[in-house]
Order: sequence, then C-alpha cells, then structure tokens
Amino acid sequence: MDFVIKGNLCYSDRPECLTTLPQGYLVVVGGVYAGAFEQLPECYQTLPQTDCGDRLVMPGFCDLHLHAPQFAYRGLGMDLELIEWLNQRAYPEEAKYSDLAYAGRAYDLFVDAMRKSATTRLCCFATLHAPATLLLMEKLEAAGLRGYAGKVSMDRNAPDDLCEPDAGQAARDCETWLREANRRFHLVKPMVTPRFIPSCSDELMDSLSALAREYGAPLQSHLSENQAEIDWVSELCPKAVNYTDAYDRFGILGPRTVMAHAVYPENEEIALLKKREVTVAHCPASNMNIRSGIAPVRKLLNAGVKVGLGTDVAGGQTLDMLRAVTDAVQASKLYWRLIDQRDRALTLSEAFYMATKGGGAFFGKVGSFESGYEADAIVLDDSALPHPQELTVLERAQRALYLSGDCRIVQKYVAGRSIL
Amino acid sequence: MDFVIKGNLCYSDRPECLTTLPQGYLVVVGGVYAGAFEQLPECYQTLPQTDCGDRLVMPGFCDLHLHAPQFAYRGLGMDLELIEWLNQRAYPEEAKYSDLAYAGRAYDLFVDAMRKSATTRLCCFATLHAPATLLLMEKLEAAGLRGYAGKVSMDRNAPDDLCEPDAGQAARDCETWLREANRRFHLVKPMVTPRFIPSCSDELMDSLSALAREYGAPLQSHLSENQAEIDWVSELCPKAVNYTDAYDRFGILGPRTVMAHAVYPENEEIALLKKREVTVAHCPASNMNIRSGIAPVRKLLNAGVKVGLGTDVAGGQTLDMLRAVTDAVQASKLYWRLIDQRDRALTLSEAFYMATKGGGAFFGKVGSFESGYEADAIVLDDSALPHPQELTVLERAQRALYLSGDCRIVQKYVAGRSIL
Repeated sequence: MDFVIKGNLCYSDRPECLTTLPQGYLVVVGGVYAGAFEQLPECYQTLPQTDCGDRLVMPGFCDLHLHAPQFAYRGLGMDLELIEWLNQRAYPEEAKYSDLAYAGRAYDLFVDAMRKSATTRLCCFATLHAPATLLLMEKLEAAGLRGYAGKVSMDRNAPDDLCEPDAGQAARDCETWLREANRRFHLVKPMVTPRFIPSCSDELMDSLSALAREYGAPLQSHLSENQAEIDWVSELCPKAVNYTDAYDRFGILGPRTVMAHAVYPENEEIALLKKREVTVAHCPASNMNIRSGIAPVRKLLNAGVKVGLGTDVAGGQTLDMLRAVTDAVQASKLYWRLIDQRDRALTLSEAFYMATKGGGAFFGKVGSFESGYEADAIVLDDSALPHPQELTVLERAQRALYLSGDCRIVQKYVAGRSIL
Repeated sequence: MDFVIKGNLCYSDRPECLTTLPQGYLVVVGGVYAGAFEQLPECYQTLPQTDCGDRLVMPGFCDLHLHAPQFAYRGLGMDLELIEWLNQRAYPEEAKYSDLAYAGRAYDLFVDAMRKSATTRLCCFATLHAPATLLLMEKLEAAGLRGYAGKVSMDRNAPDDLCEPDAGQAARDCETWLREANRRFHLVKPMVTPRFIPSCSDELMDSLSALAREYGAPLQSHLSENQAEIDWVSELCPKAVNYTDAYDRFGILGPRTVMAHAVYPENEEIALLKKREVTVAHCPASNMNIRSGIAPVRKLLNAGVKVGLGTDVAGGQTLDMLRAVTDAVQASKLYWRLIDQRDRALTLSEAFYMATKGGGAFFGKVGSFESGYEADAIVLDDSALPHPQELTVLERAQRALYLSGDCRIVQKYVAGRSIL
C-alpha cells in the first residue's frame, strides 16, 4: 500500500549533516521512498496519510553485528575479558541451542525485543545448530525484520558440544542449511559465518569460501578484536602477513563481507579492507565491555573503508542502536584524547550516518529518506523528555540519541510495512 | 513510621562484593535501618510490611556532582569541548536563571526528574543567582530529596551577566544566601560553590574559604578536568605547585569538600587529596562527552582517596546513576587497556559501592542497608527484561545496572520516607 508519513523527519544523506524537516512528508510508493518533502507534492495528495504528530521520524537503524543467542545473557559477566568470556559465558549459553525448545523460547524473546527496537536490518550470528538457526530466521522473517542470519561454523578450539567433528562435516552442514534457508526465507537470508580464524581450520575456511561463492551468500566474521586473539591468529596462520591477510588468503573478503571490530588494524590491513570493499562493523560498547580497546574509525573512514555500527549483543549489553550512535561518539572522543589527536573525533551526525545510510548500504538502498530508498523508519516519542525552552527538531533528535532510554519507539516500518 | 520492606535486596557494604538477599527483609526504625535480614527477627514481626514482590531493592544512589540548570540542555551540543561548551551552552543557559519565572519552570522539571531517578542524595551546582538557588533548594526539599545545593560564585573570566561585580560583592551575596538557606532548609543545605579557579579571584576564594568555615558549610568545585584548564590555572596561580595545591592554598580542601573530576592529578596531588580527606566525584560520562579523558580512579582508590560518582549533568547526558556505575566500569576498562595496565579495571561491585556507600559517606551513614544507615532505597522493576533461563538476584542486579533504561523505579525512600 502506498502512503504518506507526516512528522518531524530527521535523517542523514551524507556524514556531515543531520537533515531535519519539521512537519515534513515522507512518501512511500511500493515499499520505497519517493522522497522526503517540506510540502506534499500535488501528485501524492490523494494517498492515505499517517500523522505522527509532534513525534520524531528517523530511518530504520542497521545493526551490522550481533549474536542472537547471547541476548539471553546481555549485561551479565561483564567483568571478564574476551577469551574468558567466550569460555565462561558465550559457549555454555550457545550450547543450549541444540535444544530446539530452549532455542524457541530464547529466540522468541530476542525477536520480540528486536522487533520493538530501532533496528530494521541486521546481520546476526546464531549458533552452530542448523535447526535452531532456521527457527531464528523463521521468527525474524515473521516479525517483518530483514537482513541476514548465520549458522556459525566452528571445527576447532571450541568446546566439544560446539565443535563440528571435522571440516568436511562442517561444510556439508553449512551447505544443507544454506539450501534450506534460501528455499524457505525471502526477507532474512543466510550468511556464511565462520566464527573467527581460531575456531575454523584452513580446510573449513576454504570450503566456506567456496560455498559463499556458489550460493551467492554474504559472509560475516570477527577481525582483530583483541591483542591476544591477534597473536593467536598469527600463530595459527604463519604464512599470513597479518590478520586481514589471513582471511584474504581464503578469498572471503569482498563487497558482501562484514567484519566485526577491526580494533587493531595495521595500515596494510586498512588498505586491504578498502581494496576488497569489506564493510567493518564498529561495535563501541562491546569493545569497552570486553576491554578490547577503541577501533580507529576515523582512520578507516579516511582510507575509504565502509563502516557501519553493530551492538554486538552480548559483548554490547543492549540492542539499542541509538545508544550505539552515542557510544561511537564517546569512544571516538576518547580515541582522540588518549591515542591520536590527528584523528578528530566522530561527530554525532557521522555516527548517525554510520548507523543508518552507511551500514544500510550493505543491504541495498537502505537507511535514508532519499528517493529510491527502501521505506524503513521508526517513529520516536520523546515526550518523556521535558524541557523548559523551545527546541528545534534537530536538537530534539540529538537529545533522543543521547537519551534513547527515555524515548519510546511507537511505530516502525520495514520496506513500507508497519511491524509494530 | 517504622516498617519493613520485603524484596530482593542488593547492596554493597564493601567494594569487593555485591551482597544479595533474595526475598530479604529491610527493617526501618526511625528513618534508619535496623538491618537487612534473611529471616525477619521476632521483635520486628509486628511492624507493617511493604512487599515489593519479585522486584529488586537497592540503596539510594548518591550523585556527588551535577549542575541543576544544565538539565535543561542535557544531550545537546555534545560535539563541543570544555571551554567552547561552557561559552556556547552552559553560560547562556545559566544566565536565564536571573529570571525567576524561567528558573521555576526549569527547576520544576529538574526536580521532578530527580525525584523519579535512582538518586536520593545529591551535591549540585545551581547558578550565580541567589533567588533561583533558594527556589531550587525549596523544590528539592519539598520533593523529599536530601543533600546540598550551591549558589555558584564567579567574579572573573565569565560573561558579564554571570560575573559578580567584584569579590567583595560576591562574598556578601554568598553570605546572605548561606544565612537564608540555612534558616529555611533542613534537608537540602547550602554548599559553598566557587565554580573553579579560573572563575574566582584570589580575594573571592579567600572569602569563600572563610565563609565555609564560619558557617560550617561544605564546599564543592571542579579540579583538573582538562589539560587546557590545568595550564590556565597554572598561569593564574604561579605560586601553586599544581592545581590541587592552588585550592589548598586557600584552605578549602577538607573532609567536607567535593572536587569533581580529577582526571589528570599528579602523584603529589593524589597524596594531598588523601591527606585533606577530600571526596572526589568521578564523572565518567562527562569526561567522555567533553573529551576530558579518563580519571585514574584505581590510582585514587589505591592511595586511599575517597571517591564517589557523579552524573555531571549536562556534561553527562543523564541523571541515571545506574548508568553512571556501568559508565565508570567501561571507562576504567579503557583506562586499563589504553593508559596503564598496572591499574586493573574497576569491577561492577566496586563501581556500585562508589555510587552508594562510597559516595554516601559524604552525607553521613548513607548508601548501605547495614544497621544504623539512613533508610534510603529504590525499588526497581526489571520485568521488562525477559530471559529464557533462571537468573539469580545477583545476575538480575548486574543486568539492571547495565540496562537501567529498560527498568522502572517504582518506589523510592529517603531516610525512611516514601517520595515516589
């Protein structure tokens, strides 16, 4: 159905600015924006209108990296570091998803929270288990969300119950899952998901690379989150020049690849990420919580690397992408202060852009109100944030980003369909 | 009225641990805790009971540093650094509080938000204006909150409309205000508040120091937030060895002094803060937002300095002290990772302690459920945080701290009085 959304529009068509249209009109035709207008053009005046009143309307947010099974323990065990945390928290929880009844309960909670969140598109890790992953995809699609989910592949350095018996079996399992997922789902598609190099043998990485090509599937993994992990990868891949090169040797870096983190990339790695057109998922909250550090986002952007934002639940504690925006700004300010004052800090509009149109590019024309973009939007009620003075729509949008916990998402559209 | 609160109790009597008593009993006698009990002692069984059901009960939080007039623009202008931000945001807003009607409107919003927050005790800055500051104190006291508020003193390096004409006049204004505030208020007392050395001449600092002694009033100010500020202080006080010594020369450092920030203290300054028994208000969110850096909290604690937490609204964007707890942990992890790996990161329980009993010590026996402590508490509904597995009360408390935006404060007691 074609329609018009009227409200206080706020979006970003380029990193330098947040554009606002107070009491503007968003025209949705065939699930796609015909544009955002100050005055409603004559030709759309017969379309039905949804009036959002004084509320803020923003594009849907794109969460480029999170772990669906880890939602169950968000905010717990945060005093641990990466490898301890994987062993004490992540792996024991993920093992439970062999039980489809548990997976169903847990993913119901996850998908419901995701549906109510600011996120319209996501790239998420599931677990090793194909049945549970299919169930997750079914639930995400039924909720009206779009994006990618990945059955995780691991065949080494993982607990027995999360380790596939050998690379051949792991590859066959992945292929069976890819076929079934491609057949059954249209909005949530499968994404090849080697956890990270330490969990995947060379043989498995080669097979996954071939499968991604054969099935035209995108691929996601983790890159350079932590110094101990980097050292481990360098031991495991003695021929690789660096961590990024270790992935590149398997032929898995390309325009349909998301790499989470990139906290410690060397200059050569940044150049390679740019050359291969990889999208980096920057996850500031997780990088703080798991004591990884701060990713050099300005440096990546300056080099022309594509960067979006991820919540990395449960390394990050919350699905809230508005918070991810301000976390990215805060982390970047500390990077500037503590690491390198040549890299000026991200502005709020730059971080907002990364969370919408920047990361949205991975999904197609997504994340903006410009003509031709898929009609994703959230409607935000900020009336619980009183103020004694008049505020512009831009100021209200800034405040809503910094105080998202005090705002309420009251409506949400994905490709023109209302899902809340 | 004496009564019993039954619920899932969570508090910290020492930094090393969060103590939980699932379905425990808190006994309030004469506004003071008789203690927290697993089983209700015989002698209290006739007292009326408030059953909090499955909710979490925590001590009230102590916000040691914030600016009441800045609440009006929390979350705005965050792309600026300290001195720019003072000139473009803080000072223009504070100037409005010469208008008592505006101050009334703005402080109504602030006090209402504070009443609904997790904070039971606070040390806050107001503005230069005595009438507006008295109005703020009246509203805080009427809301049932306790602590201190300060009419700000400034006689140099401030816009004309926020600069008192001379030190003599500034001191007389402060004294008149101190007398009236002491006479009118019993729960919210006046705190002598030189903004910081750059805003106060030597003559004014000497007078404020004398007034604090004469009226037995505590004193609050800012210390070492930012390198440019430190350099400025060193120019303004050529005889002082360092910023802390600059304050010490006026005799204002003592057990009733709160100094906000201390992001860049030298070792001698840390020793002096310890010797004078000053309480440092650590404000992690503000230190990120205004690009100040990260305070060396572990180092301060190791040296025996008293440290509490502050939101520093509006350098910090939110009044939420639960978030201040996890912000302190995140900042400390980055300090460990990026600055000094000898200083191990704060744990969640250490940060919780700082926000409750640690900072609470400034107000007396406040911030714990131990016998003899004033009966401050919040009751937290975390039922909007679903989980597929069983969680202990300790796990729920951890998660509520990390995801406070998704919890609701449904009841609040200050010294045994319900204020929500």
